[in-house]
Amino acid sequence: MKVEKTRTPVTVAEAVFRVTERACRIGTERVPLAESYGRILAEPLTATHDVPHFTRSPYDGYAIASADSAGASGNNRISFTVVDHIGAGAVSQVVIGPCEAVRLMTGAALPPGADAVVMFEQATAAGHTFTIRKAFEPQENLSLQGEDMRSGEMIVPAGSFIHPGIVALLATFGCGYVQVGKRPVVGILSTGTELLEVTAQLAPGKIRNSNGPMIAAQLARMGIPYRLYDTAADQLEACLLTVRKALTETDCLITTGGVSVGDYDYLPEIYKRLGADVLFNKVAMRPGSVTTVAVTGDTYLFGLSGNPSACFTGFELFVRPALLKMMGADKIYLPRTTAVLAEDFPKANPFTRFIRAVHDRSSVRPAGFNKSNAVSSIARGNSLIVLPGGTRGYAAGDLVDVLLLGVEEGTDEWVL
Amino acid sequence: MKVEKTRTPVTVAEAVFRVTERACRIGTERVPLAESYGRILAEPLTATHDVPHFTRSPYDGYAIASADSAGASGNNRISFTVVDHIGAGAVSQVVIGPCEAVRLMTGAALPPGADAVVMFEQATAAGHTFTIRKAFEPQENLSLQGEDMRSGEMIVPAGSFIHPGIVALLATFGCGYVQVGKRPVVGILSTGTELLEVTAQLAPGKIRNSNGPMIAAQLARMGIPYRLYDTAADQLEACLLTVRKALTETDCLITTGGVSVGDYDYLPEIYKRLGADVLFNKVAMRPGSVTTVAVTGDTYLFGLSGNPSACFTGFELFVRPALLKMMGADKIYLPRTTAVLAEDFPKANPFTRFIRAVHDRSSVRPAGFNKSNAVSSIARGNSLIVLPGGTRGYAAGDLVDVLLLGVEEGTDEWVL
Repeated sequence: MKVEKTRTPVTVAEAVFRVTERACRIGTERVPLAESYGRILAEPLTATHDVPHFTRSPYDGYAIASADSAGASGNNRISFTVVDHIGAGAVSQVVIGPCEAVRLMTGAALPPGADAVVMFEQATAAGHTFTIRKAFEPQENLSLQGEDMRSGEMIVPAGSFIHPGIVALLATFGCGYVQVGKRPVVGILSTGTELLEVTAQLAPGKIRNSNGPMIAAQLARMGIPYRLYDTAADQLEACLLTVRKALTETDCLITTGGVSVGDYDYLPEIYKRLGADVLFNKVAMRPGSVTTVAVTGDTYLFGLSGNPSACFTGFELFVRPALLKMMGADKIYLPRTTAVLAEDFPKANPFTRFIRAVHDRSSVRPAGFNKSNAVSSIARGNSLIVLPGGTRGYAAGDLVDVLLLGVEEGTDEWVL
Repeated sequence: MKVEKTRTPVTVAEAVFRVTERACRIGTERVPLAESYGRILAEPLTATHDVPHFTRSPYDGYAIASADSAGASGNNRISFTVVDHIGAGAVSQVVIGPCEAVRLMTGAALPPGADAVVMFEQATAAGHTFTIRKAFEPQENLSLQGEDMRSGEMIVPAGSFIHPGIVALLATFGCGYVQVGKRPVVGILSTGTELLEVTAQLAPGKIRNSNGPMIAAQLARMGIPYRLYDTAADQLEACLLTVRKALTETDCLITTGGVSVGDYDYLPEIYKRLGADVLFNKVAMRPGSVTTVAVTGDTYLFGLSGNPSACFTGFELFVRPALLKMMGADKIYLPRTTAVLAEDFPKANPFTRFIRAVHDRSSVRPAGFNKSNAVSSIARGNSLIVLPGGTRGYAAGDLVDVLLLGVEEGTDEWVL
């Protein structure tokens, strides 16, 4: 039997720091704009022309020379003659003369000679003429060239997640292709003699492997490709072989189980045999205190707990930011908010505690049964409540920190 | 020239109601578990067995009969003999006798005859024996059969978004395949004579089509397949032909532009020619007041504004919930929170105003230049501030409603 060794716990913040410090961007590639959603921008997006790139009308109306409107009032209506008519995308070939106007639609370029737009509702039309009852300032009712963005202006920094709004901007500047961070290929290896494949019949003492599919989905949520390795029984040599193989085929390997100090927990020995640099093997947190991260060469070995809740949390806290940094992202930590605790949480927190929770609006409540081996709370939560180590219990009404775990799912009532 | 018709605006809530009321689930299909992330569960997920399905040890330790520990204390240590040794996944074949114990690891099944577990740190070991200094209760340190979930219990309702935690649960219950809502196929048709393809050279009076790629990315974010139609100039007959074609090829069609009352806005006429039922064509909101939704047969026609910001908002407010309902989702509205406004917003709000904004932690600020034709603020925001119609300006420090637009991107500092 092995002798238990004492491990030195690090704080969550220190563990996160040690993991992300070592991560390097693994390269960039060029993808079509239509495939760029969810990737990380490798180069800053700079305006290559003014937006708008020509002064245009923000309304349906008439383009005039503002000088012609001087002195207009209710008692002194000034009349204009419409000499052309253009929609968005058209350019008037007419140069307007005194008290002439061009009827134009929203988005149409301001014709030469005009410097203001009379909105339809500001004019009284009669055939090809209209009258106005107020004077217009130069540039009144115009969308000026460059008012949104200036040519040369840096609009979105490198490292940004490409969301639909950034796609719109890339399209505006004619980027048919986008340079983005490469995605790492991640291996998933679930260890444990107790594990059955998902489609296997239950057997005494055995459970189906839920961590592997869960991590695959956590990676799918990030758009990251993965490779699943066959579930490994708790046998040192066989497991070591699989790990060695995975290390040649992936940019990082996530294992589940086998990282604690139990008699059949072989991951610590595997790290030793590989000569891997163990960044930490104990974190002052619940669940997941045995979470281990090691590095060999350029490859990460994430040793997550076999307990589903701890495994889930370990991925979101440690794996996610490392993978994002490998892709060149600058915002690598989970989005967070604060919320009012909706029910008492009387347990003391000797270590920082992460509780699967349901966040809605400004309140948050634990997602139910919250042991680290619980699967049901994982299925119900959309966030993690963070209770700092060294605190006593919390009461309903207390303000707590909340990490948001992807808000793909919304709410079931419309309240605005 | 067309005569402007008066449109009757509906409230945002009424518009959302009218859109979602008409949406029906378009069917279900069976997908492999590995492809189920992001889909909508078509049937409730019910526990098909207890979880755990056998009583097991949540710790590394020794399984004992608690009765044997009666009377144990510091002065009266009771000694046990280890008669077997199992890891998770193994089942002991030994029936323990008086003061016998089985050494077992986290997750291992409780052996017959045992009803409590002594954690390693609660025992003093010596060779194949150990002593304890306290009595153990029946069921102490056990993870009891069914404590997480009971066979037959409904765990996740139909209509839930399948996130990684639900994948874990599906795996636990051996679901190699999952019945999910079918995804609609969505057509995207950008209209406007001013529009150039993304890779085209700029030309006077023209702009590149950014709404089409943006909507494609908004659909990609939802995992929904789409079909892009060639950009249509503002020509009634040609546009009508394209719309008719799209209606035969898609479950719903999103158009951008052409829904206002301008001289070349042909969508209203197209709805009329199609005999479509116009659910609304004016909403008391900014931007996007001209957003129109019509239904012909079973097919939605979403007429979004051509202004990028209005187009974006129209998609998130009206298209998204309808598509989610078509997939059978029960939480179809954008997730929301409340946050403290970080800067003054002095403009009055005659109509409900949606402002692209950056939400971080508990505060929110407008994402900059906020006209409806602005592209830059779309690229910067991760949320929408909602200011109700009929309100005056807001001041920094005011609490406002915020709709979250997908939190794929996190934060750039770790603060916990």
